[in-house]
Amino acid sequence: MKGQAMWGGRFTKRPDHLVELFNASVLFDARLALHDIKGSIAHATMLAKVGVLTEEEASIIVDGLAIVRTEIEDGKFVWQTSLEDVHMNIEHRLTALIGPVGGKLHTARSRNDQVALDMHLYVREELDMLDELLTEWMSTLLDVARRYDQVIIPGYTHLQRAQPVLLAHHLLAYFWMFSRDRERVRDARKRVDWSPLGAGALAGTTFPIDREDVAKQLDFHQLYENSMDAVSDRDYIVETLSIMAMIMMHLSRLSEELILFTSYEFGFIELDDAYTTGSSIMPQKKNPDIAELVRGKTGRVYGHLLGLLTTVKGLPLAYNKDLQEDKEGLFDAFDTVKPALVIFKAMIATMTVKTDVIEKAMRHDFSAATDLADYLAKKGLPFRQAHEVVGKIVRTCLDRQIALIDIDLATLKEHSEHFEQDALTCLLPRSVVDARNSRGGTSPVAVAQQIQYATAMLQD
Amino acid sequence: MKGQAMWGGRFTKRPDHLVELFNASVLFDARLALHDIKGSIAHATMLAKVGVLTEEEASIIVDGLAIVRTEIEDGKFVWQTSLEDVHMNIEHRLTALIGPVGGKLHTARSRNDQVALDMHLYVREELDMLDELLTEWMSTLLDVARRYDQVIIPGYTHLQRAQPVLLAHHLLAYFWMFSRDRERVRDARKRVDWSPLGAGALAGTTFPIDREDVAKQLDFHQLYENSMDAVSDRDYIVETLSIMAMIMMHLSRLSEELILFTSYEFGFIELDDAYTTGSSIMPQKKNPDIAELVRGKTGRVYGHLLGLLTTVKGLPLAYNKDLQEDKEGLFDAFDTVKPALVIFKAMIATMTVKTDVIEKAMRHDFSAATDLADYLAKKGLPFRQAHEVVGKIVRTCLDRQIALIDIDLATLKEHSEHFEQDALTCLLPRSVVDARNSRGGTSPVAVAQQIQYATAMLQD
Amino acid sequence: MKGQAMWGGRFTKRPDHLVELFNASVLFDARLALHDIKGSIAHATMLAKVGVLTEEEASIIVDGLAIVRTEIEDGKFVWQTSLEDVHMNIEHRLTALIGPVGGKLHTARSRNDQVALDMHLYVREELDMLDELLTEWMSTLLDVARRYDQVIIPGYTHLQRAQPVLLAHHLLAYFWMFSRDRERVRDARKRVDWSPLGAGALAGTTFPIDREDVAKQLDFHQLYENSMDAVSDRDYIVETLSIMAMIMMHLSRLSEELILFTSYEFGFIELDDAYTTGSSIMPQKKNPDIAELVRGKTGRVYGHLLGLLTTVKGLPLAYNKDLQEDKEGLFDAFDTVKPALVIFKAMIATMTVKTDVIEKAMRHDFSAATDLADYLAKKGLPFRQAHEVVGKIVRTCLDRQIALIDIDLATLKEHSEHFEQDALTCLLPRSVVDARNSRGGTSPVAVAQQIQYATAMLQD
Amino acid sequence: MKGQAMWGGRFTKRPDHLVELFNASVLFDARLALHDIKGSIAHATMLAKVGVLTEEEASIIVDGLAIVRTEIEDGKFVWQTSLEDVHMNIEHRLTALIGPVGGKLHTARSRNDQVALDMHLYVREELDMLDELLTEWMSTLLDVARRYDQVIIPGYTHLQRAQPVLLAHHLLAYFWMFSRDRERVRDARKRVDWSPLGAGALAGTTFPIDREDVAKQLDFHQLYENSMDAVSDRDYIVETLSIMAMIMMHLSRLSEELILFTSYEFGFIELDDAYTTGSSIMPQKKNPDIAELVRGKTGRVYGHLLGLLTTVKGLPLAYNKDLQEDKEGLFDAFDTVKPALVIFKAMIATMTVKTDVIEKAMRHDFSAATDLADYLAKKGLPFRQAHEVVGKIVRTCLDRQIALIDIDLATLKEHSEHFEQDALTCLLPRSVVDARNSRGGTSPVAVAQQIQYATAMLQD
Repeated sequence: MKGQAMWGGRFTKRPDHLVELFNASVLFDARLALHDIKGSIAHATMLAKVGVLTEEEASIIVDGLAIVRTEIEDGKFVWQTSLEDVHMNIEHRLTALIGPVGGKLHTARSRNDQVALDMHLYVREELDMLDELLTEWMSTLLDVARRYDQVIIPGYTHLQRAQPVLLAHHLLAYFWMFSRDRERVRDARKRVDWSPLGAGALAGTTFPIDREDVAKQLDFHQLYENSMDAVSDRDYIVETLSIMAMIMMHLSRLSEELILFTSYEFGFIELDDAYTTGSSIMPQKKNPDIAELVRGKTGRVYGHLLGLLTTVKGLPLAYNKDLQEDKEGLFDAFDTVKPALVIFKAMIATMTVKTDVIEKAMRHDFSAATDLADYLAKKGLPFRQAHEVVGKIVRTCLDRQIALIDIDLATLKEHSEHFEQDALTCLLPRSVVDARNSRGGTSPVAVAQQIQYATAMLQD
Repeated sequence: MKGQAMWGGRFTKRPDHLVELFNASVLFDARLALHDIKGSIAHATMLAKVGVLTEEEASIIVDGLAIVRTEIEDGKFVWQTSLEDVHMNIEHRLTALIGPVGGKLHTARSRNDQVALDMHLYVREELDMLDELLTEWMSTLLDVARRYDQVIIPGYTHLQRAQPVLLAHHLLAYFWMFSRDRERVRDARKRVDWSPLGAGALAGTTFPIDREDVAKQLDFHQLYENSMDAVSDRDYIVETLSIMAMIMMHLSRLSEELILFTSYEFGFIELDDAYTTGSSIMPQKKNPDIAELVRGKTGRVYGHLLGLLTTVKGLPLAYNKDLQEDKEGLFDAFDTVKPALVIFKAMIATMTVKTDVIEKAMRHDFSAATDLADYLAKKGLPFRQAHEVVGKIVRTCLDRQIALIDIDLATLKEHSEHFEQDALTCLLPRSVVDARNSRGGTSPVAVAQQIQYATAMLQD
Repeated sequence: MKGQAMWGGRFTKRPDHLVELFNASVLFDARLALHDIKGSIAHATMLAKVGVLTEEEASIIVDGLAIVRTEIEDGKFVWQTSLEDVHMNIEHRLTALIGPVGGKLHTARSRNDQVALDMHLYVREELDMLDELLTEWMSTLLDVARRYDQVIIPGYTHLQRAQPVLLAHHLLAYFWMFSRDRERVRDARKRVDWSPLGAGALAGTTFPIDREDVAKQLDFHQLYENSMDAVSDRDYIVETLSIMAMIMMHLSRLSEELILFTSYEFGFIELDDAYTTGSSIMPQKKNPDIAELVRGKTGRVYGHLLGLLTTVKGLPLAYNKDLQEDKEGLFDAFDTVKPALVIFKAMIATMTVKTDVIEKAMRHDFSAATDLADYLAKKGLPFRQAHEVVGKIVRTCLDRQIALIDIDLATLKEHSEHFEQDALTCLLPRSVVDARNSRGGTSPVAVAQQIQYATAMLQD
Repeated sequence: MKGQAMWGGRFTKRPDHLVELFNASVLFDARLALHDIKGSIAHATMLAKVGVLTEEEASIIVDGLAIVRTEIEDGKFVWQTSLEDVHMNIEHRLTALIGPVGGKLHTARSRNDQVALDMHLYVREELDMLDELLTEWMSTLLDVARRYDQVIIPGYTHLQRAQPVLLAHHLLAYFWMFSRDRERVRDARKRVDWSPLGAGALAGTTFPIDREDVAKQLDFHQLYENSMDAVSDRDYIVETLSIMAMIMMHLSRLSEELILFTSYEFGFIELDDAYTTGSSIMPQKKNPDIAELVRGKTGRVYGHLLGLLTTVKGLPLAYNKDLQEDKEGLFDAFDTVKPALVIFKAMIATMTVKTDVIEKAMRHDFSAATDLADYLAKKGLPFRQAHEVVGKIVRTCLDRQIALIDIDLATLKEHSEHFEQDALTCLLPRSVVDARNSRGGTSPVAVAQQIQYATAMLQD
């Protein structure tokens, strides 16, 4: 409850204290503490290798950093806003522990390349986590699709019933969206995996450092080849936010469908109680809160993306303090997207598909109309004409208040002599589904093939 | 450090716990606690007046709420995420204190109208605070303008020197921007000042409540006349965010100018040490961190505005859980804008204007060129021709590497016979400034009049 | 099809031609032509009054401008990108028509205050148009609400059925949203209604102009009191875009509901054919294209708002060329919002409410549950307990697969002894609606009162 | 000037005509005409191969399409908004040319997969163009860097002078930014290169089509494996807009620097007249309009990205009309980014670097201060102490009003006994630059190596 402690209630208006709080980043960048220490250990180790520090100095520093790390992990570390950021807090504590030699750790580096290093380590780790969470989520989607590979539901365009589809097919559409997201995560990772350390404040350093060595220790596959770029680059954060915005966009679409499908009017799906809540006033309610929250939080992640794009726009080289604003939105986006993926996985895995409701619902619509038109087209009618004929048949049914499936051959023949007995068969939902046997189509055969492709892709 | 406690580090992936945290709003809506209690007291008082509660019941409830308020103010209240939100936390504690009668407080209201009430109270209070902060900030701008009503600086368009202006005039441009922001705050306040209580979950209530009485107690000047509107309206939050985005837009422009004017190249202004910081590596640096941060945080506030607009887009009536996302961005925007105004006020009040540097800088440019053209225009030349003549004079100066001010009458006459001795006078920065005597112009006389208007506007 | 003509197809890559096109604004700012001429006439008239032009010069200029205006209105004017913008195109043509005296029109003004004037005239006119369109739209909403003041539909929260409401009540919720938008339009208009002319390039002018006279001619109620503010202010455009974003937000919510209500599953409403389209492939489809388009175009208007906020962020005073980007997004927003309001008005006025479908749909849900709980609360049970009892009754119904309305007194009494015969009455949708008689509630009496308030507000 | 023709002037308010214009996309999607025809030819060819069309039918259709293509290329095609979109316009003309067989072209496809195909072809082509333009722009950056590999300019952080750098180094920072953009373009291309044709309206088709064949004809390396995904996927457009937002972000940073560097106060650079404009009122002005416009247009591209993200948020599967909004923003973004790259290339290639101004400017600052501190650190002082010592030296210089470079050894020794004669040498800009010899640093040796890497990367 940062805000409350800091700015809330009756506003104090003491500018000096406000300035300290305004400048301080430690309230959020403390999250980078372990990455900061990891980077510092690699830096100190390298400095000893190239002779800028003695082996003994490096050893004292590394041991001291290990103590600080333990204090942080044990929750005993005292963060101070007066020390501004995570780096100064740690260095201050290090020097308290090991004396002035602690000051030598900052040789040949600047806070500019130091924080860049921390962020690269952090984002890389989080991208790997996202990759893992996406993989698990895709795996669940695939499992659930397999479970419902015989269930037919209405397929929609314009939220109007269009053509029946397998529920498996519908779910797999999401599988592919997230597979692209995972690919984007991996592509972005390549561009995060660059080591900025050694860029100094902006121009490199006068010390004979070995940047490759640090990169190797920290498992970076590439170096920034330009020191000014290294300290001012925030592309990888913008790109990461873009990808998270896309993931939320996909989750928001699925959320919308869950909200629709669990409504009284659709009634196709029931979510496990764990993912719904009741009403404080209406005893009958079972609200799909999680789906609504995820849909709502999409705006939040979009906002973080736009916020950072706006912040970086028009900044001259190299580092500017504006860039400190790269963190909170990113952290919040990870804190939004990661649990959303975990919860969705569990929610989808436990949902109940109400097949009886769905079957009843399928009985009365007109979603086989395309197939009647295709039937005529296959008999040689130009499709545009066939479409017109079937339009009239639909109108006839509506006038007589019967379902398309209840039409008889005589009536069909009134509209076109091309109709034969087999025209009636093609009106069954199952026939409609079976008939869409083109690659990527919704027929059980095509979906089985699709599941094979998806399985292979998942293991990739 | 919410994120860290909740989601950070190695990800637990236990969905049940995640769901609780995902759903819970108490980590941020606890900020509304005192407004919630205030609203509840008004509600209970009204319920007694109309006979839904007995006087005794109401009295017990009100006393209980007073105790809870004290616990919160004293920092002794224990917030629980398992109780989800601020409302349930308070009611739970109330019932623990006063027994089952606590449950009667929720008669004739729902969390939907309750949270709407809290937010209206909160936003109204914050808008009043913004109004006050803007007024103080405008007052400082006006004071500082008065202080520099004789200092001439270059005026820029396209960041190229255009025409000299009074520093007072330049500063007053900002005064008017913020005066419009203050007006917007006041206009928005009218639309916040509506009481939603009594809307129930969405359709009103079956109890014989007196909405006017609650509104009167809480000093609302109007009621929502439609219960569904009352619980689903987030316009006032979007509007408030729009206004804060605009305030940040204005501060970002001033920030940019402070960053420019304190650069080595301009050197017009020096900020007090309190608002700058040094470098961990470059001992000579004095960085305008506050100005950069405010410029950077502009993106953040824009992001919150866009986030909420996106969240509300396409939501059906009435309440949807997505709307819970209306709070954090708003809170953060207030936490950004309010201290920014306070700090800017102090920073501008204490800045040093380096008049000697400025005077020297004014000596050599060509910003009196317009006045030469105006001179010719007043002698009868169509302005477009006069402009062309002066363009050639500028070119001559550049070729000879002299300043415009160093030109002699003979040279002028070579370009146009209309030039007389008084043409030379009009080249002095002071003459240029004095000559712009139209209303709203930069001449000392016009600026003095402007200051009068501004003073009157401020006291409005 | 600007893009196509200019940049499309195989890319020419000739930078000089690209620069001309990149710089030129005439392809979009030609829209301001009539405002530009109107402003120029006022300027010339004033210049004659103060003696900067002779009466004869002014008269020639004004007559020339009238000819240009006619050429434009008749579609005979030839716009040239080589002349960059609307101002130069018109002045160029004017000078061709009346000779060098045309050049005198630009005396005592700059393109910076000229374009600012044009935009103020344009935006003011468009805001007045928006006001008018909103009023007509609100009037239609009110009419349609009156038409359906006896039709009961399910009221939703979380898209789950909550409590029945009058369709009139539901529609009126939108009335109030748009009434606030109209109020915002009027508030914004106050801040557009400032005359910038006379600000010159940035610092005022050396000519003895009479800014009040121009303002009076053009019906402005106020002057910019600071010339730098006058030429760099884009607040009023940002504010106008904010308001249009809000209007689209409201339309997007109604769009979503129309899409839901016209779906097969809901089936409450049928739109007139004029506002739906068929499918090129599915003969049975009747798609709510207009509602979808408006929902989709919401993103577009949000984008224009963000775009301008981003563009203005961090710009130093006074005019910068970036500000030329203030126009296209604004124009497009007006071109989106205005027809959307007109079309929605016609679409809502002509929609068919399928009362039989709705009545049938109301029969089976549990949306009277709150009233059962209120019933118990009125008998003295704390509401939280009453809520729990009714929750169990709902569960019982679900187990027995009966509607709440089909329950008998005996069963009710099993759950609480407080139930009497009148408990059954309160389960009827009409009873539920009638009972919500608090001000702003959904009862017919309350809604009738609400309609009175709305009628009064509309005529305001 | 679409808007003007369609909505402008006095608003007609005839909703039926407005609906036609609102629905119609042909005013912008006509841009896809050639891609549409290309896709149709491939489709017809395949239909003949699998026997759905006869060879003769296919041949007539393909020949007819060729005629339509020629009509379009020759500008003779008459687009009609009453025919709604590019597809219907073309099919309508085709049928007029070849008779009812034209209607058979639409067999086994829907407008949903047809427009998806067109957009994939279009975006893929534009990404290839972007790749090419980025490569040419990077090549120019590299050339210009090579040209200035001995010019030293101040390096900035916080817009305060920090440490001197080679201009080549500064320019190369941008090279790397755009190299990442190019990589992103290539990564995105992989995800555009999927063929959607065959997805039908949403569920596949009942015809025995050969999707692989179409893909092969159109050079797609992959198929959408899910028909619902194929027609509702707009990821690739969002991703493309994200990348263009990033490119504009990078160009906006360079623009800001050009605006700074061409200002009177910096004066480091002069742009060729072709990329600047004058003032209508101030004869001396040379404004960097192009750089300002590009900086300003950044907001526009950001807006398009946000617009589409918002539009797609929360859309259920599969196609919804909202998705028609995917085009105009994208087209406009390409129309902005592509000429910006071309113009920047020409502008940077022709700019003049004013080395004499820069050299003079370098003389007086304190940007060698870090090197003095490093000097002490190398003598064994902990860096934090060295930093403190040099801070005091800077203060001394400021007090005495001398440049750092004018200090003498005696004064240095007063501050620390570690200083020797060689300390003075390290104060020269050239020494400072030479000393930053770490990989990626600004020393001439390091920069030469960097140029080698960049050259290799460019040819990649």
